[in-house]
Amino acid sequence: MAHILKGAPVAQAMTECFRQEAEILKEQGVQPTLAIVRVGERADDLSYERGAMKRAASMGIQVKQIILPEDVDSETFFGELMRVNQDADVHGILLFRPLPRHLDGERARQMIDPAKDVDGCTDGSLAGVFTNTDLGFSPCTAQAAMEILHFYGVDVKGKRAAVIGRSLVIGRPVAMMLMHENATVTVCHTRTVNVPSVTREADIVIAASGQMESVGSEYLREGQIVIDVGIGWNEEKQKLCGDVKFDEAETIVDSITPVPGGVGSVTTAVLCSHVIEAAKKMYQKNTR
Amino acid sequence: MAHILKGAPVAQAMTECFRQEAEILKEQGVQPTLAIVRVGERADDLSYERGAMKRAASMGIQVKQIILPEDVDSETFFGELMRVNQDADVHGILLFRPLPRHLDGERARQMIDPAKDVDGCTDGSLAGVFTNTDLGFSPCTAQAAMEILHFYGVDVKGKRAAVIGRSLVIGRPVAMMLMHENATVTVCHTRTVNVPSVTREADIVIAASGQMESVGSEYLREGQIVIDVGIGWNEEKQKLCGDVKFDEAETIVDSITPVPGGVGSVTTAVLCSHVIEAAKKMYQKNTR
Repeated sequence: MAHILKGAPVAQAMTECFRQEAEILKEQGVQPTLAIVRVGERADDLSYERGAMKRAASMGIQVKQIILPEDVDSETFFGELMRVNQDADVHGILLFRPLPRHLDGERARQMIDPAKDVDGCTDGSLAGVFTNTDLGFSPCTAQAAMEILHFYGVDVKGKRAAVIGRSLVIGRPVAMMLMHENATVTVCHTRTVNVPSVTREADIVIAASGQMESVGSEYLREGQIVIDVGIGWNEEKQKLCGDVKFDEAETIVDSITPVPGGVGSVTTAVLCSHVIEAAKKMYQKNTR
Repeated sequence: MAHILKGAPVAQAMTECFRQEAEILKEQGVQPTLAIVRVGERADDLSYERGAMKRAASMGIQVKQIILPEDVDSETFFGELMRVNQDADVHGILLFRPLPRHLDGERARQMIDPAKDVDGCTDGSLAGVFTNTDLGFSPCTAQAAMEILHFYGVDVKGKRAAVIGRSLVIGRPVAMMLMHENATVTVCHTRTVNVPSVTREADIVIAASGQMESVGSEYLREGQIVIDVGIGWNEEKQKLCGDVKFDEAETIVDSITPVPGGVGSVTTAVLCSHVIEAAKKMYQKNTR
């Protein structure tokens, strides 16, 4: 049976490390602060927000919630976003997207100060992921996948990696991050012919297509490390499932992340670590 | 023997098409203009500049040359760059890099207005390549490789592509561009184990490592399309050579670009097409 790469110890180690950084900042009079901007009451957003707030508390991060009604007018919404953008006491901004249709999501995304873009959604952050430079922050889920590999001692250098999915929140950025660490990466997507033939060649498989339980035994071989980024509610089984058929994969591969309890549980730790990094950068800039 | 995918007809077709666009702009009182900013007299720069000026003339583009001495001081250099950046009559800027060491190349790169970044070097342009959106312009050599594939009717959708090299000017952007057109792309680099095993799997091979004549028969198989992005002077043979051992490849693959006369001859056409696109966008913005 495969080794199970649980997310909790990864998140715990990150929390310990960054809590200490937060303490040092507080001694300098800096209270690391995350602003959460949410429009409406979507269940996914509420669930992620609860997790982020709990993680923030355990790292010593203060959270300011800006909660706006579903039908908030554009002027009020952009006014609030501009306010946290300019607030020197806010170091990071998490804006839940997609926004309701009457609000211009693209304008909102571009408005966020790259220095506060702890969720890694602005062009500055995405350019940083592509160029491997210190612009903005990496998208949290992509970095969470990498944190798991690092924590469990998987050196990706010289390994073949297959990423299933090419989204901007996970597929493309994780492919770049793997490449920057010297993996040889292939990105598969909906137009890839014979995805299993590609993934079977890989030492590391990142399942990030968002297609629940789509990756079965035919995609896998012995010795692989599988990171399952998917999460969805399986009506039939009445439980959360990932993109991988876990029961099949577990009997074949070397290591696999569970769902729930894998990548998802590391994502908020990454988000919070970015808030502390942002606060640190801002402090260093101001005291230079 | 392989089909030879020459660059000249590709550049010619682009020139015809964009010359017409330039004519239409001129009728509206807009003279598409490229500013070339060069510091010193490096032979590579001079050679590229000559090619760009010739191509610009044939497309109806005016060129302003800003030529500064190798030892120009920082204030003068950045003053000149700012001037063309702000000059409403300049639509595109080509800045030769690397700059001499006493000038901050990173500052210069970031200073260029993304709307005038016809060489595709700013973060805005690179973010656009990564996100597949209309920010800035693609790096010219990467787009030249794609233009050759388009011109010769190669549909990359569903094909396997291997890119050798991960530079920001060619490897990474061409990988993204191939992926956006639905190829399944693997990027090989100096840390890739067994590059030939990767490239032999591919239907399309983009050789862009900058290692002269490094891609021999063991990297190739029947039926492949090979785009050779390399160009260098072979002392022994006393001629220009690409990254591919042309004589070996020609007997194996389906199609291959020659060096010289391949990708390189399309690059200036792409640059000039960007100048006309930039002029068009600026005109549309001003008349909206």
